[in-house]
Amino acid sequence: MRTVEWHAPEPGGPAEVWLIDQTRLPLEEAVVRCADYRATGEAIREMRVRGAPAIGVTAAMGMALAALEAPDEPDAFAAFLERAGAFLIGTRPTAVNLAWAVQRMRRRAAAGLAAGCPPDAVRSILVATAQQIAEEDVAACRRIGAFGAPLFAAGDGVLTHCNAGALACVEYGTALAPLRTAHAAGAGLHVFVDETRPFLQGARLTAWELQRAGIDCTLITDNMAAHFMARGAVQKVIVGADRIAANGDVANKIGTYGLAILAAAHGIPFYVAAPTSTVDLEVASGAGIPIEERDPDEVTHVRGQRVAPPGVRAAHPAFDVTPARYVTGIITEAGLIRAPYESGLRAAAAAAPVGYPWPP
Amino acid sequence: MRTVEWHAPEPGGPAEVWLIDQTRLPLEEAVVRCADYRATGEAIREMRVRGAPAIGVTAAMGMALAALEAPDEPDAFAAFLERAGAFLIGTRPTAVNLAWAVQRMRRRAAAGLAAGCPPDAVRSILVATAQQIAEEDVAACRRIGAFGAPLFAAGDGVLTHCNAGALACVEYGTALAPLRTAHAAGAGLHVFVDETRPFLQGARLTAWELQRAGIDCTLITDNMAAHFMARGAVQKVIVGADRIAANGDVANKIGTYGLAILAAAHGIPFYVAAPTSTVDLEVASGAGIPIEERDPDEVTHVRGQRVAPPGVRAAHPAFDVTPARYVTGIITEAGLIRAPYESGLRAAAAAAPVGYPWPP
Repeated sequence: MRTVEWHAPEPGGPAEVWLIDQTRLPLEEAVVRCADYRATGEAIREMRVRGAPAIGVTAAMGMALAALEAPDEPDAFAAFLERAGAFLIGTRPTAVNLAWAVQRMRRRAAAGLAAGCPPDAVRSILVATAQQIAEEDVAACRRIGAFGAPLFAAGDGVLTHCNAGALACVEYGTALAPLRTAHAAGAGLHVFVDETRPFLQGARLTAWELQRAGIDCTLITDNMAAHFMARGAVQKVIVGADRIAANGDVANKIGTYGLAILAAAHGIPFYVAAPTSTVDLEVASGAGIPIEERDPDEVTHVRGQRVAPPGVRAAHPAFDVTPARYVTGIITEAGLIRAPYESGLRAAAAAAPVGYPWPP
Repeated sequence: MRTVEWHAPEPGGPAEVWLIDQTRLPLEEAVVRCADYRATGEAIREMRVRGAPAIGVTAAMGMALAALEAPDEPDAFAAFLERAGAFLIGTRPTAVNLAWAVQRMRRRAAAGLAAGCPPDAVRSILVATAQQIAEEDVAACRRIGAFGAPLFAAGDGVLTHCNAGALACVEYGTALAPLRTAHAAGAGLHVFVDETRPFLQGARLTAWELQRAGIDCTLITDNMAAHFMARGAVQKVIVGADRIAANGDVANKIGTYGLAILAAAHGIPFYVAAPTSTVDLEVASGAGIPIEERDPDEVTHVRGQRVAPPGVRAAHPAFDVTPARYVTGIITEAGLIRAPYESGLRAAAAAAPVGYPWPP
């Protein structure tokens, strides 16, 4: 199944959003069924679904569920969607795709209501729009794969951090997309997978995906990256993004910034792969991107098991910001962008074949 | 109790080496009692005792246990010690303190035998030498504390990796020694503790030590270091060492090299603290230091719990090498050494008040 799926057994009947439960991988393959927008929001907050594109699509589907639940009276309908959107946006602050998807759904609803559409018609529009956003994500990932694959040479060692694969999207992935495309063309890549503490997305999700895709990989702890770079085993680094500022600064999973410095110190290209829905042209630089602080218990515990003494303080910034000067290129569905990033990102956003700018 | 202790209830009677079991901290405080050199070697291999100075002292005590067990006939006595030493040295290859301590014990035995001492006299000499090595380590750590403390300013944020504290030595610590000394003088430091995957020495041991010492600290995952450096929270980095080459290259716990690059990128001084028993003047540079490869299961599992899909390959280099150009200074019991390191290390080794060069 896809990472995020819309399930409506009967047209016009009750619907659910189905998610692969990413907190239980790789040892259990379970599905979370969300029957309303609150359940989708909780699934996002608890990281049962994670990855910027995937939580954007999930939030869009959550808004569609909210539309199905909203009262018929137009003002009440709009107010219900407004509250649902605020709840969904509030679940995780860093990835802009979440707000992007909610806003897109709200505007679509507002346009339908303003045009005098009856509530059921607006509901149908929103359900269709959520599914369209999912399909756009699929198409964007395939295009990222095609634009990114030529950057990798046969036999390259490629290091990736966190999970920017199929599980971070609807399918196929962002950072893993060029690797999948190159692999399909016989590139014979070898991927180093950072385990990515504290949530272990690399160990649990990326290793699982690469194994299923038949792509050769080696799992390492995050602190081994520099060692393998120094030994000449890593030719490229590629990561995803949770938000890209107008100047090209990249917010991504904690550890990305350090990795970018290490790549630069070893003369290794550092690529970021993300759909244009991850670009936030309203934020001038990384300094303006909110960094989510999660529960320190996720640091003092590993998979529920305490590893630090009781009472010790821990910090848990979930993301960091990599300045644009460390980024060799940004691979979007509109093409590969190189510095200076601001003009390139604006052009990509304008030229993006799908998903950007926000439709009315 | 100390990290490593010699226990002999009756003079001339059976003896044991007692170790704090570091695999069970911080949730359990247990003691491993080793009745022979084989048990001390297994405790080193299984990392029940770890840290370069501590495994040096443990190996010395293991050699003393071997002497108690060795046959009386001089050639057989020497051969027994030779085999015991080879076994102990083979348990872990990177930290030179292990080989240093074994060699020192062997030479002491050879000198005693050559002088015609009866076996029981040689046994007494070796038991006394092992205890002397332990006391020298205690003295060296206190001196490292005194030489290193002035490097830290009031209120400094200090980042450390792995555990180079009391648990890595007989007591007090190497990298933590200057912090303990500065703290006792009221410096008000704040220590960032890298959790240090895969063995979690930071989370389990350093956080536990600092908490008991009343030194303010925050536990972080290894991949957060750059983030806190960028935010201005870290003024100094200090780590221990497992072997220092003649040119000042430093082998230390995996992740140290990356941390040194990150410190340099942020203009943060990077200090190494180690006794001169950690210096290997016979190895010209880090390229000559063997890097231990441990079981990949220690990467795919955390505290016995599988976190990666079955069948995925993992790598587990236990150490890395930090080139001397990233090291701001090396704090030894003979003083603070700055670049160029070779002359400074040779002078320190010659001037070391204790423990170096190897006595006959």
